[in-house]
Amino acid sequence: MNISDVAARLRGMDRILILTHVRPDGDTIGCAGALCQALRDMGKEAYLLYNPEITATYEPYARDYWAPENWEPQHVVSTDVAVLDLLPDNASAYRGRIELAIDHHPSHSWFARESYVDASAAACGEILYAVICELTDITPAIALRLYVAISTDCGCFVYSNTTANTHRIAAELMAHDFGAAEINKVLFRTKSKVRLRMEAHMAAHMELYDDDRVVVMTIPLSLREEMGATEADIEELSSLAALVEGTDCAITLRELRPGIIKISLRTGPRVNATDVCALLGGGGHRAAAGATVNGTMDEVKRAVLRAVEEVVGA
Amino acid sequence: MNISDVAARLRGMDRILILTHVRPDGDTIGCAGALCQALRDMGKEAYLLYNPEITATYEPYARDYWAPENWEPQHVVSTDVAVLDLLPDNASAYRGRIELAIDHHPSHSWFARESYVDASAAACGEILYAVICELTDITPAIALRLYVAISTDCGCFVYSNTTANTHRIAAELMAHDFGAAEINKVLFRTKSKVRLRMEAHMAAHMELYDDDRVVVMTIPLSLREEMGATEADIEELSSLAALVEGTDCAITLRELRPGIIKISLRTGPRVNATDVCALLGGGGHRAAAGATVNGTMDEVKRAVLRAVEEVVGA
Repeated sequence: MNISDVAARLRGMDRILILTHVRPDGDTIGCAGALCQALRDMGKEAYLLYNPEITATYEPYARDYWAPENWEPQHVVSTDVAVLDLLPDNASAYRGRIELAIDHHPSHSWFARESYVDASAAACGEILYAVICELTDITPAIALRLYVAISTDCGCFVYSNTTANTHRIAAELMAHDFGAAEINKVLFRTKSKVRLRMEAHMAAHMELYDDDRVVVMTIPLSLREEMGATEADIEELSSLAALVEGTDCAITLRELRPGIIKISLRTGPRVNATDVCALLGGGGHRAAAGATVNGTMDEVKRAVLRAVEEVVGA
Repeated sequence: MNISDVAARLRGMDRILILTHVRPDGDTIGCAGALCQALRDMGKEAYLLYNPEITATYEPYARDYWAPENWEPQHVVSTDVAVLDLLPDNASAYRGRIELAIDHHPSHSWFARESYVDASAAACGEILYAVICELTDITPAIALRLYVAISTDCGCFVYSNTTANTHRIAAELMAHDFGAAEINKVLFRTKSKVRLRMEAHMAAHMELYDDDRVVVMTIPLSLREEMGATEADIEELSSLAALVEGTDCAITLRELRPGIIKISLRTGPRVNATDVCALLGGGGHRAAAGATVNGTMDEVKRAVLRAVEEVVGA
């Protein structure tokens, strides 16, 4: 399937339901919203299946598109969904009838009748941009949602997945004057007070090991409770340790429940994060991996440091 | 003067010295380095005047180009320099003989024989990109330096000065494979331990006023001394307060010397930062202004809060 095939399939559909993934991010919501708007601009009936985990951050880009209860689609499409298990529970009736999946995850499991997967795309939004260009005019409403999709998945053009094509598409989108400055402020230059205070606590108590190349930050359950932190306040907090200059092994330990610790590892070339986490029953990528283990914060910290030593020494 | 005129002037020059501004940032150094490399690629002799305040962050982009002592230029050019007073002291001999100034500051003071100023450019690097495209091929060495220039002046494409053109140029530059991911990691995803600890202290002690719309953060002299912070660790620390969700008036107070406090204000539309700082003997822009006043931290804090109240109530 190429981009024109995807456009042709969508052109042939009507009464279309678009599915997004659990813990919805900017990419899945931005893609679904942009596609829904484009299909409506073409005169079609199109909706997003309500995503019960939608957050206030991304709700504005989906709110005009939620399907009415009991609305019966003819065709079902998914955007940015890698595997069926990442669909929310209320999508269970549609799991077996997804006709077209558009995605950029290398782990895509080919669950749909037809799929377009480009793992070189920084965001699924890059693919949707190409598809929508073949279908209809890019309007400010579409450009806004595609920009949200793309910018959030590449950390506003700072992550290593950002390519020349990512910037090229951003340039085309910004020509539509959708207010990128305000979006950037909300998405990338705002932190909740609780989040700032949690980061402050983590930074103030960071520990350094192995000639200051290994940094450990912790999020005890007590800290979370004390500060009344929500899941949104804690999201991606493990990226803080990865900022510390001179380190190439950032370990974040989060106490999920008493005696259960989630380990997040971000590493440079010297330390294979997957190998470290494999020793602890977890997994992931070479530069980012994780595991969830039993123990006190101190026990788990010692276990991770031992595992790092073992992998680096090997 | 248009871009072709600028290119024609440079084509007519040889033995060219390029000047950068004090407290050199990525834009002035990236522009000067890229232009110097381009001129050399054209077979010309070209150097940068050594900038005594160059930091470790930007030195790599200039180190191949510093002029030997006593080298005598025929022509002198400046990049990203708004006014003569922003030249370093060792440039005094060249102040009166700058033939060409290339800049993007609205406050440019037209000190050179000829000038090209485009205040709509997010970075002076955008202008240099257009100029160099007319002069010679963009190589990875040139692309790298222009990327440093552009990305640092727009906060890696997140500030409100970022335009479609900024992204378009970034796309062209990234096609030259200069290692943008590593550059982004160093420039935008690394913080010194001292800086992280200072931010932690500031966030942990932030104070909120006026229905939580006004946030105050402080940097006492004692904190700086305790942590052994360098000027680089403190640079731009006033941007931290501007991140606090729900606030539209971020006040950062830094004790420069005992009894002397530097005020930095970042504001949303409700509060005119210039008006507030004017009441305190300072100035700036509507959304970002500053002042330096005498007093204790507490006295100055009360004075700023009173000034905000007066301006908002007016």
